[in-house]
Amino acid sequence: MPHIELESHLPGITGLLEYRKDTGQPIRDLTQVIMRGPSTLTEAERELIATVVSHGNQCRFCTAAHAATVDLLLGEDETCKKVKEDIATAPVSEKMKALLTIAALTGKSGRLVTTEIIEKAKAEGATDLEIHDTVLIAALFSLYNRYVDGMATAMPDNDSYFVMLADRLVNHGYSRLPQGYDHLKK
Amino acid sequence: MPHIELESHLPGITGLLEYRKDTGQPIRDLTQVIMRGPSTLTEAERELIATVVSHGNQCRFCTAAHAATVDLLLGEDETCKKVKEDIATAPVSEKMKALLTIAALTGKSGRLVTTEIIEKAKAEGATDLEIHDTVLIAALFSLYNRYVDGMATAMPDNDSYFVMLADRLVNHGYSRLPQGYDHLKK
Repeated sequence: MPHIELESHLPGITGLLEYRKDTGQPIRDLTQVIMRGPSTLTEAERELIATVVSHGNQCRFCTAAHAATVDLLLGEDETCKKVKEDIATAPVSEKMKALLTIAALTGKSGRLVTTEIIEKAKAEGATDLEIHDTVLIAALFSLYNRYVDGMATAMPDNDSYFVMLADRLVNHGYSRLPQGYDHLKK
Repeated sequence: MPHIELESHLPGITGLLEYRKDTGQPIRDLTQVIMRGPSTLTEAERELIATVVSHGNQCRFCTAAHAATVDLLLGEDETCKKVKEDIATAPVSEKMKALLTIAALTGKSGRLVTTEIIEKAKAEGATDLEIHDTVLIAALFSLYNRYVDGMATAMPDNDSYFVMLADRLVNHGYSRLPQGYDHLKK
């Protein structure tokens, strides 16, 4: 049960973003621009970063939500599963392995990100902006993970929720849905 | 040296918020509303929460910046120092001790926030909104700490920087300064 009263039909982060809309809005804005704005990282790559960080922080809601989003974007469910198991042996590029490692370290503590792993990412072709965005996505999902679990928000009743949420995040992004789209909120 | 090229006269978070202004803006907006918007928590209490979280995450830049801000708001430098040393014996109310403990736990992991410490905060008079805001501030500064240290941003050359930064945060808040205020940026 959540530590404070939240709308019971809105599990995880969704109830928190509605609880205080004035703080929810800039969180949505930041997420939309970094996760869906122009980037040389694909949406699936950015969602993989979010998944790795949430998985490292053991946030069940965020991990399930963003893993489902990666799966929907890629049209298969092997890559994300293998990245969660072991970045080093997962079927992604060497550049993505370095960026995912930077993300996983940032999720634990920014102080763990070494010059060596940054140089490795650059050697594999990562740009400064891609490194910046990787760290910011990891920092942002460290916020989400702590917000969702620090408030003890509810998990949805069944896993089909995350298929629906992934569909929303792929087709509508992170902005607040206009009225009339309430059926997509849960 | 930062992991990517940032403006060298802008240490810590300040160079990152200028590096990508489109992500910097919603971060500023969120911080302004949660740290300076209407609240039953004073600005000093909210800055204490930010300090405790940054201190727990060992982020030197953020800890120094927000500790200096608390000191300026309170007009003394004992309270913040003692809170950093030991929340339990610090000269703050029992309600603030509970909220600061919730913040410190959230900074480590949201999963550490127990029903017991939430009930303690409520018994000492904390409202649902104050508990929400405490967790969100702790989550937000967990973002800042990871962003600042994950990019290996520079510390300023001398401690007087933080006195100037605190003056800016007290008198101008977290919004982007208009042109002509550049002397306050560093």
